[in-house]
Amino acid sequence: MARFELNILGCGAATPTQRHSPSAQVVNVRDKLFMIDCGEGVQLNLRRMKLNMSRLGHIFISHLHGDHCFGLPGLLSTMSLLGHGGEMVIHAHPDFERVFMPFLQYFCREMTFTLRFEPCYMTSTEPIYSDKGLTVTTIPLRHRIPACGFLFEEQPGERHLQGDMAKFYNIPVTLLAEIKRGADYVTPDGRVIPNKVLTTPPTPPARYAYCCDTAYSERIIPYIEEVDVLYHDATYGDDAESYARQTMHSTARQAATIAREARVGQLILGHFSGRYRDENLLLDEARQVFENTVLAHEGMRCVLRR
Amino acid sequence: MARFELNILGCGAATPTQRHSPSAQVVNVRDKLFMIDCGEGVQLNLRRMKLNMSRLGHIFISHLHGDHCFGLPGLLSTMSLLGHGGEMVIHAHPDFERVFMPFLQYFCREMTFTLRFEPCYMTSTEPIYSDKGLTVTTIPLRHRIPACGFLFEEQPGERHLQGDMAKFYNIPVTLLAEIKRGADYVTPDGRVIPNKVLTTPPTPPARYAYCCDTAYSERIIPYIEEVDVLYHDATYGDDAESYARQTMHSTARQAATIAREARVGQLILGHFSGRYRDENLLLDEARQVFENTVLAHEGMRCVLRR
Repeated sequence: MARFELNILGCGAATPTQRHSPSAQVVNVRDKLFMIDCGEGVQLNLRRMKLNMSRLGHIFISHLHGDHCFGLPGLLSTMSLLGHGGEMVIHAHPDFERVFMPFLQYFCREMTFTLRFEPCYMTSTEPIYSDKGLTVTTIPLRHRIPACGFLFEEQPGERHLQGDMAKFYNIPVTLLAEIKRGADYVTPDGRVIPNKVLTTPPTPPARYAYCCDTAYSERIIPYIEEVDVLYHDATYGDDAESYARQTMHSTARQAATIAREARVGQLILGHFSGRYRDENLLLDEARQVFENTVLAHEGMRCVLRR
Repeated sequence: MARFELNILGCGAATPTQRHSPSAQVVNVRDKLFMIDCGEGVQLNLRRMKLNMSRLGHIFISHLHGDHCFGLPGLLSTMSLLGHGGEMVIHAHPDFERVFMPFLQYFCREMTFTLRFEPCYMTSTEPIYSDKGLTVTTIPLRHRIPACGFLFEEQPGERHLQGDMAKFYNIPVTLLAEIKRGADYVTPDGRVIPNKVLTTPPTPPARYAYCCDTAYSERIIPYIEEVDVLYHDATYGDDAESYARQTMHSTARQAATIAREARVGQLILGHFSGRYRDENLLLDEARQVFENTVLAHEGMRCVLRR
């Protein structure tokens, strides 16, 4: 198990303000960087947070509203100007290919890396990324256009070997890997030592769910149950609940209700409307429902695992 | 004659830095706003400078490199979200229509204003805008792709009537407009009073030239002779002259040479490479050639006429 961190680069809603940039985050898993949404100005906020662009290989776009993707052309151009190599994979709604790719290809004619597009269908949950440390799965959301959230989960870890027991039974080193994966140990004289005597359960995988730009929807709860951290749309306060319904966003209180029902560890409120000069109002409303709630802010780093 | 002001929103080169935004300016002529180039993040810098988006009707794009136009989708989306009406005219290279318009039309499906595209051919000088107070003309530049500068000129004003002379000759009010336009006055008894006795010459029109992203090119001098203010590419210092040549940009010293040869009033250096932490080096090199030189900076306001 190694580093698993969330970095918030932008947590404002559609119209950027002096206080908030449009949506963008970077999940750092074992020093591989995964970007979620890519609002205008993201490349500058990456620099401000000292996140190394060259470690970025995947960008997940939750939906094709401009405040979630207008930072892409600038980011990719800069990466190309700086000579980054390798492959960049964009995961987005199928329309992306028709709308965005000709644009990117025109402006980044001499790209130094390979740009690959992976369609994300958004109507049901689907696994969209997997490596030995991480899986990413989509979470269908309810918004004005097809939109999804993303669930980042560490791969289940191995059981922890009890060093003293391994020594006591004099277990050959060659068998330890198998035992960590759950095997019992059979002694030379045929005795079976059950795995649970030799190991303790694995550390639970860290899990992060991003559910931005969604109306209140209890249908997402099964996907996000007991995640460590949930980032949820909290565009509005109680004062604008009808407006939230109309624009298919959520209030802070609705976000907290989802967090409580899904028994998450911590709730981060984000995607703040420009109408609020101080989001503590939203925080107060959410905490009435779910205590362990915090406000997102640009530059925020949330450590799920060191 | 009324207000004529230049506002600098971004004066950095291709890769944005913490210190400089990519290229963007707003010329304010009689409270109509004209944007020149539209780098990423321009909408935020407009707010910072308290420039009213609703007064913006024309955007002139000097060339289709991303750092001069990636702010457009965000700016137009925000204007539409804020419900701005009327017409927005984009003046840009003919490729813009094919590359940019489908993109904008996808993301700004319900635009509240009319978006009109006017092609700018960039191979020779051409008048591209005119109203009763202002003309805008292109200036062909030398860059890696078709690029142009823009010359903003007030329309020539009327001659100034000498009130005491008008009174002395008892000139009827109905004739004053004609006299301000240069007519002589014929007294009731047939005497001709020459116009120059009755008026003084008009205030010279304010003239501003934007020549960004260009290699050193003496061919631009005839277009910009004696402008009040010249903004010129000064991407590099003497230390990187060969790099300037290779990328078809200019050094500060070259910008100053153009300013001196064209006998401009003031030179503003801009489009600074990210390699310089302090552009005073560029300023010093330019001032060796042309004294009245200043460095551009974000938030700079240059008043050509109050």
